[in-house]
Amino acid sequence: MKLNIAILPGDGIGPEIITQALEVTKAICTKFNHELTYKEALVGAIAIDKTGNPYPQETHNLCMDSDAVLFGAIGDPKYDNNPSAKVRPEQGLLKMRKELGLYANLRPINTFPSLIHKSPLRPDLVEGADFMCVRELTGGLYFGRPQGRSEDGNTAYDTCVYTREEIERIVRLAYKLAGQRNKKLTIVDKANVLCSSRLWRQVSQEIEKEFPDIETEYMFVDNAAMQIIQWPKRFDVLVTENLFGDILTDEASVITGSLGMLPSASIGIHTSVFEPIHGSYPQAAGKNIANPLATILSAALMFEYAFDLKKEGALIRKAVDASMEQKIVTEDIAFDGKAYSTFEVGNWIVDYIK
Amino acid sequence: MKLNIAILPGDGIGPEIITQALEVTKAICTKFNHELTYKEALVGAIAIDKTGNPYPQETHNLCMDSDAVLFGAIGDPKYDNNPSAKVRPEQGLLKMRKELGLYANLRPINTFPSLIHKSPLRPDLVEGADFMCVRELTGGLYFGRPQGRSEDGNTAYDTCVYTREEIERIVRLAYKLAGQRNKKLTIVDKANVLCSSRLWRQVSQEIEKEFPDIETEYMFVDNAAMQIIQWPKRFDVLVTENLFGDILTDEASVITGSLGMLPSASIGIHTSVFEPIHGSYPQAAGKNIANPLATILSAALMFEYAFDLKKEGALIRKAVDASMEQKIVTEDIAFDGKAYSTFEVGNWIVDYIK
Ligand SMILES: CC(C)[C@H](C(=O)O)[C@@H](O)C(=O)O
Ligand SMILES: CC(C)[C@H](C(=O)O)[C@@H](O)C(=O)O
Repeated sequence: MKLNIAILPGDGIGPEIITQALEVTKAICTKFNHELTYKEALVGAIAIDKTGNPYPQETHNLCMDSDAVLFGAIGDPKYDNNPSAKVRPEQGLLKMRKELGLYANLRPINTFPSLIHKSPLRPDLVEGADFMCVRELTGGLYFGRPQGRSEDGNTAYDTCVYTREEIERIVRLAYKLAGQRNKKLTIVDKANVLCSSRLWRQVSQEIEKEFPDIETEYMFVDNAAMQIIQWPKRFDVLVTENLFGDILTDEASVITGSLGMLPSASIGIHTSVFEPIHGSYPQAAGKNIANPLATILSAALMFEYAFDLKKEGALIRKAVDASMEQKIVTEDIAFDGKAYSTFEVGNWIVDYIK
Repeated sequence: MKLNIAILPGDGIGPEIITQALEVTKAICTKFNHELTYKEALVGAIAIDKTGNPYPQETHNLCMDSDAVLFGAIGDPKYDNNPSAKVRPEQGLLKMRKELGLYANLRPINTFPSLIHKSPLRPDLVEGADFMCVRELTGGLYFGRPQGRSEDGNTAYDTCVYTREEIERIVRLAYKLAGQRNKKLTIVDKANVLCSSRLWRQVSQEIEKEFPDIETEYMFVDNAAMQIIQWPKRFDVLVTENLFGDILTDEASVITGSLGMLPSASIGIHTSVFEPIHGSYPQAAGKNIANPLATILSAALMFEYAFDLKKEGALIRKAVDASMEQKIVTEDIAFDGKAYSTFEVGNWIVDYIK
């Protein structure tokens, strides 16, 4: 098969972890006889520095021309305390989501036995937790208009908008994922308060009828925020709108104790983007200590979701599991003192695949 | 002192727990020579059943005429799976918040040593956690207009609006509370995405200058959802807008393992309302098994916040602590088998106060 991918390293540790994920991707392509072509482009703070634009047109064109995008991380401390700066790295992210039509962010949440002691939750509650968060990514308060200020500047407003089509698309996707998993879907909204949530619930109740073999439950977002901590194992697939998803997926990601291990896939109309859920971790940039596993696992999701290459994805997962068993890991998850570098971990996994 | 209070039992276990809180209030008034007058009124599902309105005008008039409101809980299973029912108990709650001007919901989160094993978090993370959540309660997406549907019904929208005055009022209150506590304030927003959050941050940064002795930090809501689980002890006072507060306060409430113990105060322009944070727990209604302590502790908050009667509040707390030490508690927090009834627990506390 021919795989044509865009590489967007971004900021902070982005370049280092992307390098390892790319090496792993190359090794898989060699092993399975796929023809890989790839090109790199700028995104984030580094793109602002070099072009004034956090998501340059050139980068967008490359993404549109590619079959998949491997993305590192974006963000730079110089923007952290200034959320009203005219140009910000996050704007690039939002623009990319909108222009590529990345309507669904998928985050598998699962635990690694050797990392359970790092969870803030009691081990018995998280051991074996395994669910998938599906976050709508191009609607809601993030993109609704009008958004702005009154003339005197003393009133500010945002608009949460959802259309039937947007809801149908993501809820159907969530049902399909549930069908491939444990056949349970939790639909999270705030239908007791929000009009947009009532449309979510109405449309979901219609689509529910198309999937009689899936158990559906509806849950208010405040309740979901509680249950994710109280009973993480009760969830299989959880779907929700953009802002609720932002909050709940971050909450869910810490319960496993392995933030540096969690990948994500953003499914797009034009192309899909695969990236670790962690940030650009600027303190570690350039030090060759960042954990590359979340990005390497994002490459596994790329093989599975963008190219439907299941065996390739499975081999990456197997290699990652093996590296953890052999304790070839970076310092954030090192077991008894010995920590390996970003490069060493990536290299070990490449060797394992070969 | 003359205390004139409104009693709103509401639905489910509401009447039982309110009865105990009222008995405790009477005992305190007798002990400290206060003159107590009180009147009961309808709210919630029971108010719909009897009057067709979840917050009848009569109830509102009583609240306006009172110095404080003791509130039980509302909600009935018959409304649970029908968020678009024309009349719903929650509408009464929202109407009460708006009409009484309950702009600030205060939720102290603290741990009880004997209940720490009930927390989903590791004991070392929660032991000693003690912070105050301050949620804006009359603005944002809950009340912003326009809210509705397009003509064809296929698009739905809500509006998040905040004014400078609304933000100033609650942020100042949060600073004052931080001044009485450990002098640290965390202001939670999503200023990297929302215009309303950018106004929150701008106004907060202005008010920050009035309180140079308080340490201020700004945090994005997704990050706060993580840190509440990772490091609950790092917080002192946390303030945020209505919907973020809905989600984060519920998340925060489960970390203590003692949902049945947590009171709240909703500070109003006209009068303030004191209520447990738990719901109406319909399965337990009428069985004399519900835990009355959250409501009794809400009465303590009433003495402190509505009447500035610190000693009275402190004595209620002391009595609650004593009941727990003596293991005179309901089945939800019973230690080794022996559980007392709602009535017995309330009665024990009344006797202790006498
Ligand atoms: C950086 C920010 C705009 C972004 C979001 O809110 O979507 C981030 O928190 C995320 O979840 O990817
Ligand atoms: C019942 C509901 C409308 C309410 C809210 O969302 O405010 C509840 O969740 C709460 O927190 O008091």
